[in-house]
Amino acid sequence: MNTAATNASFAEPALRAPTHGDVLAAAARIAPHAHVTPVMRSHALDAMAGCELHFKCENLQRAGAFKFRGACNAVFSLSDEEIARGIVTQSSGNHGAAVALAARLRGTTATVVAPHSTPKIKLAAIAGYGARIVPCDTLQASRDAVTAEVLAETGGVLVHPFNDARVIAGQGTATLELLAAVPGLDALVAPVSGGGLLSGTCLAARGIDPAIELFGAEPEGARDAHDSLQCGQRITGRVADTVCDGLRSELGTLTFPILREHLRDILLVDDAAVIAAMRLIWERMKLVVEPSAAVPLAAVLARRERFAGRRVGLVLSGGNVDLDALASLFASM
Amino acid sequence: MNTAATNASFAEPALRAPTHGDVLAAAARIAPHAHVTPVMRSHALDAMAGCELHFKCENLQRAGAFKFRGACNAVFSLSDEEIARGIVTQSSGNHGAAVALAARLRGTTATVVAPHSTPKIKLAAIAGYGARIVPCDTLQASRDAVTAEVLAETGGVLVHPFNDARVIAGQGTATLELLAAVPGLDALVAPVSGGGLLSGTCLAARGIDPAIELFGAEPEGARDAHDSLQCGQRITGRVADTVCDGLRSELGTLTFPILREHLRDILLVDDAAVIAAMRLIWERMKLVVEPSAAVPLAAVLARRERFAGRRVGLVLSGGNVDLDALASLFASM
Repeated sequence: MNTAATNASFAEPALRAPTHGDVLAAAARIAPHAHVTPVMRSHALDAMAGCELHFKCENLQRAGAFKFRGACNAVFSLSDEEIARGIVTQSSGNHGAAVALAARLRGTTATVVAPHSTPKIKLAAIAGYGARIVPCDTLQASRDAVTAEVLAETGGVLVHPFNDARVIAGQGTATLELLAAVPGLDALVAPVSGGGLLSGTCLAARGIDPAIELFGAEPEGARDAHDSLQCGQRITGRVADTVCDGLRSELGTLTFPILREHLRDILLVDDAAVIAAMRLIWERMKLVVEPSAAVPLAAVLARRERFAGRRVGLVLSGGNVDLDALASLFASM
Repeated sequence: MNTAATNASFAEPALRAPTHGDVLAAAARIAPHAHVTPVMRSHALDAMAGCELHFKCENLQRAGAFKFRGACNAVFSLSDEEIARGIVTQSSGNHGAAVALAARLRGTTATVVAPHSTPKIKLAAIAGYGARIVPCDTLQASRDAVTAEVLAETGGVLVHPFNDARVIAGQGTATLELLAAVPGLDALVAPVSGGGLLSGTCLAARGIDPAIELFGAEPEGARDAHDSLQCGQRITGRVADTVCDGLRSELGTLTFPILREHLRDILLVDDAAVIAAMRLIWERMKLVVEPSAAVPLAAVLARRERFAGRRVGLVLSGGNVDLDALASLFASM
């Protein structure tokens, strides 16, 4: 979130740099509401990858994605006075549904600013949890402008999808669970969009194991995070072009420095490899995942030498996919 | 298996009536090889069904279906002399893949007699585990005739898909795990085809809880088990017409009496309800299941009064579905 208008609406705790301790606190805060998701394996995929893959199944999280962790932590961190004003957010889908559900659990309302490109199933989920939807264009500037209007109009509290310390800390709880279930992993790979999941992953993992290698995985057609880290400056204003509808945001002011400090690399993959990896997860693991969730597996399968023989954790970020669009998705690649 | 030619090839332990003790022994025998699959729940589906649903996820079993339990128990029950002769079976898909995998784990070969209607993905799985495939027609008589030929030609040992005490006992182990994970269920619902899974379910459950209500769930277009129980005679020779490719067999001589003794009812559902239930499991639980696996949920959703407020276990029997055929499957209903 870059505009002064929306920044002014942040509660102060949202914009400080989150820590490993914040992730631990988030885990305790969301425990009554979030699922501890399973970690799954596949003989077949291990053989294909030439390494040991441990999949953290956030597609089985409430509302179908890891996003519920961060949204729940943020919403349950708010004061009763803040909660009474209602929650506002912007989202390409999963965060919106997560905020809608968290708001309902806390007994308040939510308004979600969502780009026109948001998949039908994700809009239906947001509406299903009782939130109001306000449409916007896909570009970050449009998302921010409409969000600012909604905040001014409603007086609500912003829970940003990634540039919020409480959201980042919440997303990190998935990695706490993964490393508790599978101690001693050599590497972790998570998808990157705005960087909320990935920076939470970094904070959670570094506090447990200083040696673990941390990777982002990003579609070629939305490689702003990769390029931002390469040139040392946060790149904004590009138009993303990828089948991964959950990975079209750009890094935030909070997430960028965390990734710079902790990441080994961001691994790029093209959309065809993502769809092929998604299909493998459906067929071999019997798990419904959305394209964004298959990006880490696609990245690892394309780099056998790099991960050979190692123990690798991957975050299956979500499972919200339009089944009606599936045939054309498979046919397109 | 009805023909004298094939019956003659059964090892004696295959044709005696299995017991709860056999299920317990099977659990110990397959433990080094089979997965203990998770039991999953869904807030959304509970609300739709008006009861508490506990799904035993056999789609996450090795080779993608409960069938590995029975195949593994049977193959690992054989003597070294029998194993050396190789395994022969007949299967519409999942049992064939399960036997192929079990044979490979035991260090022997398998030949699978499979009807022309077997989905491509299931044939690919059988071949992928190294088994030889011999095609036949869909009718049980053709399956039996070709199986008898293969047995005569190879000298192999038959592991029947359901009319085998060791296979039935193996299938029952899923229910042992389910009732250990969720004690005190009021009812269990499993799909019925040849009756191997369902009779194993009965034996496992009855030995633990004499009061639990046991139901089969069966497609209208393959209602021979329902009608067999109604008229008290095993009905054979019908042509099944259902989208559930795993549920086109008829009851066996071993399974029929077990179902007669223990079942409360067999619940019929039409194919449209099955596909709708399958879609719900994909969308709400993020699990890939095949049509056959959705039959119990379809049956429960259609009978809200019968199950209202109760705690119900359902076996998600398998997850092997042709993704390329999916669009037409959804469109057809």
